[in-house]
Amino acid sequence: MLELTICLDPAGEKPLYQQLYDSLAEQIRGGTLRTGDKLPGKRSLASQLAVAVNTVDTAYQMLVAEGYLEARAKSGFFVLEYVDMLPQAGRSGAEKSRDGSEEVPSPAVRFDLSTGAVDTGLFPFRTWGRIQKELLYNGEKLLHHGHRQGDRELRRELAEYLRAYRGVVCDPGQIVVGAGVEYLLGLLAQLLKGHGGFREMTAAVENPGYDRPRTILENNGIPCRCVGIDGGGLDPVELEESGADLCYVTPSHHFPTGVTMPVGRRAQLLRWASAKPGRYILEDDYDAEFRFDMRPLPSLQGMAGPDGRVVYLCTFSKSLAPSIRIACMVLPWGLMEEYGRAFGSYSNTVSRFEQQTLRLFLEGGYFTRHLARMRGAYKGRMEQLAEALEKAFGRDGIRLSGRHTGLHLLLELPGGPGEKEMIASAMREGVKIKGLSEYYMERKELCGENCVILGYASLRDEEIGELVEALRRAWRQ
Amino acid sequence: MLELTICLDPAGEKPLYQQLYDSLAEQIRGGTLRTGDKLPGKRSLASQLAVAVNTVDTAYQMLVAEGYLEARAKSGFFVLEYVDMLPQAGRSGAEKSRDGSEEVPSPAVRFDLSTGAVDTGLFPFRTWGRIQKELLYNGEKLLHHGHRQGDRELRRELAEYLRAYRGVVCDPGQIVVGAGVEYLLGLLAQLLKGHGGFREMTAAVENPGYDRPRTILENNGIPCRCVGIDGGGLDPVELEESGADLCYVTPSHHFPTGVTMPVGRRAQLLRWASAKPGRYILEDDYDAEFRFDMRPLPSLQGMAGPDGRVVYLCTFSKSLAPSIRIACMVLPWGLMEEYGRAFGSYSNTVSRFEQQTLRLFLEGGYFTRHLARMRGAYKGRMEQLAEALEKAFGRDGIRLSGRHTGLHLLLELPGGPGEKEMIASAMREGVKIKGLSEYYMERKELCGENCVILGYASLRDEEIGELVEALRRAWRQ
Repeated sequence: MLELTICLDPAGEKPLYQQLYDSLAEQIRGGTLRTGDKLPGKRSLASQLAVAVNTVDTAYQMLVAEGYLEARAKSGFFVLEYVDMLPQAGRSGAEKSRDGSEEVPSPAVRFDLSTGAVDTGLFPFRTWGRIQKELLYNGEKLLHHGHRQGDRELRRELAEYLRAYRGVVCDPGQIVVGAGVEYLLGLLAQLLKGHGGFREMTAAVENPGYDRPRTILENNGIPCRCVGIDGGGLDPVELEESGADLCYVTPSHHFPTGVTMPVGRRAQLLRWASAKPGRYILEDDYDAEFRFDMRPLPSLQGMAGPDGRVVYLCTFSKSLAPSIRIACMVLPWGLMEEYGRAFGSYSNTVSRFEQQTLRLFLEGGYFTRHLARMRGAYKGRMEQLAEALEKAFGRDGIRLSGRHTGLHLLLELPGGPGEKEMIASAMREGVKIKGLSEYYMERKELCGENCVILGYASLRDEEIGELVEALRRAWRQ
Repeated sequence: MLELTICLDPAGEKPLYQQLYDSLAEQIRGGTLRTGDKLPGKRSLASQLAVAVNTVDTAYQMLVAEGYLEARAKSGFFVLEYVDMLPQAGRSGAEKSRDGSEEVPSPAVRFDLSTGAVDTGLFPFRTWGRIQKELLYNGEKLLHHGHRQGDRELRRELAEYLRAYRGVVCDPGQIVVGAGVEYLLGLLAQLLKGHGGFREMTAAVENPGYDRPRTILENNGIPCRCVGIDGGGLDPVELEESGADLCYVTPSHHFPTGVTMPVGRRAQLLRWASAKPGRYILEDDYDAEFRFDMRPLPSLQGMAGPDGRVVYLCTFSKSLAPSIRIACMVLPWGLMEEYGRAFGSYSNTVSRFEQQTLRLFLEGGYFTRHLARMRGAYKGRMEQLAEALEKAFGRDGIRLSGRHTGLHLLLELPGGPGEKEMIASAMREGVKIKGLSEYYMERKELCGENCVILGYASLRDEEIGELVEALRRAWRQ
């Protein structure tokens, strides 16, 4: 049972919930409360402190909102890893993080193989910084409102890049730049529902798959149906049966299984979309830049053409950084008029300084060079990891898939102890990984039992040996 | 009748609509087609060129999307003012705008008094640039995903600033940072409807008022009712009668009439909100920083407290620049849990580099100094303009209101020729202004007949004499 030292002063200037919040936050920052610690139940703590349950509840909610605690359904409140997100420098006489210590990740996690990370060491700081500085020194014009779809010059560069590298067929007038794919998906949902949201529709999403698109579509009043994945990606028969009007899909590189949809299946999807009015495919090309073996298949959008039934979505989260919020979507001409009607008065959500930095980065050819460099680095890392794993477990001891494109591998341990145990024992060795079954929103029974996902993007090459050794210890059979 | 020279090549590589688009865009950029020119009807142009109506339609839609044309309901397509948004510099060997010329605003408009502009000459380029550069050089950590509500350190600074300057009572955990008030209003609409959007509700909006909040709420499935404004702001009797659940309001400085809501009326609004469960006030404090006569009244949110029924919204569009997309909202604790459920997996929409630049700008005290400087400059400009107007028209010849806060004045010309004629004759003298009636979404008959709005934020002090002279010529009686 956790020991808590909390002094509240009912006569104090601050309200009790604030005092309780301050005290708990302090203990988390100071390390008295540690990652994973379970806090007392609200009622029990309230009676212990002789305060109302509401007071404890408010303090807990504040701590959850601030990222100190995590609320787990039906089991209570747990302390999250405390990492102050303060950059260390940035001011003269810079402060350290609030508790006076350097920023140290929790000692428990030595290797974080979650997906969604990138290798920040590859970020082109020098060029990006130079462009940014030049723009700011000449930037008075960039302070004014820009085009609602994003600066025209950026959209010209994007159209050209998408045409050349992804076979997307579009005019800059069809491109909408926005602060992340999530934001754009939200707009799209409103657009497709008919702004005002009165048209009833449902969307098919991939299972297994990302859960965020589903959350966003459902938050925008579009219920989702799960459609299964086979060796060719999303199953068109299940799609037809689902009765969906929209289909969210990742054909270049299915997340998380890594399947690339073959061209015949793509044609089937396009036929599905054209078979009824109002059907659209939402093609998320989230990491197609990182194909290692050959040029990626052109996008579905390219097969459908600029008047087709495909909305193309792509992000710069992986190719630049997750914290630089730039994504874009390509709408078919048939939706542009409605787009203008619904969102004609909206401002663009991306700072024009960052839009223009990206434009000049694309225009100067820096982006393609940067991609080539990243692709090389990630490919090397992936191969090194795969080799080390095969050496440690034997070629028959594991099965690796998803090697042709990045930034994660699937690892199966035939006859292993089961996914849950694999994750737990890896965690005991300091390796944080996710299981494939986490990405099944329904029918988890279809998931292989011994399959985990290794996101290697933020791994350092020189750590690979140590990581594989830790996994071998965790899973030795 | 407009003469068009268009050559299409049916055997050409580009599709016909693209050729037509290119040709028209070229003529607009080159000045052959001029601002305000009406294009031929689709059918007529199609038959003239011997192409399908669809071809013309697609080309016109592309031109609308690109900002070359404007579609006016029931009257056709008109050429918009062409201003290339390219910054001139930013690359070595920089290119000029596409048509080879310098960027020149249409010679017709000498003074643009639309609201929404800011004086970009006041932007703190040097400090902002220095902070940005320091952050980038130490910025590897800032490349990772940050907190979904915005970086914690930024939210601490915002909470402190809002407390000190706007009387907002909140914890950083209640603040959500986002890429513009529009984006945040959209999230809020989804949150209040219960994510999924099944709860039926309506919102009251101010009439006259901004139309964008109404557009956003309606796009998110919340129908709006217009509620009138009197000398104390939004009318609480009409609000009660409207049956609305939400009330969007600008109490510090009603847009566009400039009314500040007195404290008694504020209390009435808060009583309205507490009278039924599920009622919320959305307080938009869009330009309260620019109060010239005295310290602004504290926010409604401050009167209601951190658990009250007020969501507070504010933007940095006016105090920094419209193109730097940072705004924030303060949610009551009662909504935070639902916020976490609905948007727990969303990424924040503001680049962390800009978040941290703003944080250090606030933390270093630069922001309050910058505001003081802006306030001084705007106040001086407003007074100079008001004096010059009173001198030119005589104290009884015009009525000015909205002088205590920024960044626009209302000008009434008693016995004048009517708003439409005032706008048209000003335009003939090169002055672009808007009429008050444009902000009436309903019941335009309540609007005074001779009232226009003068946004003076981007005016140069030395131009004021010339501007007032132009208005005197336009409206001489």
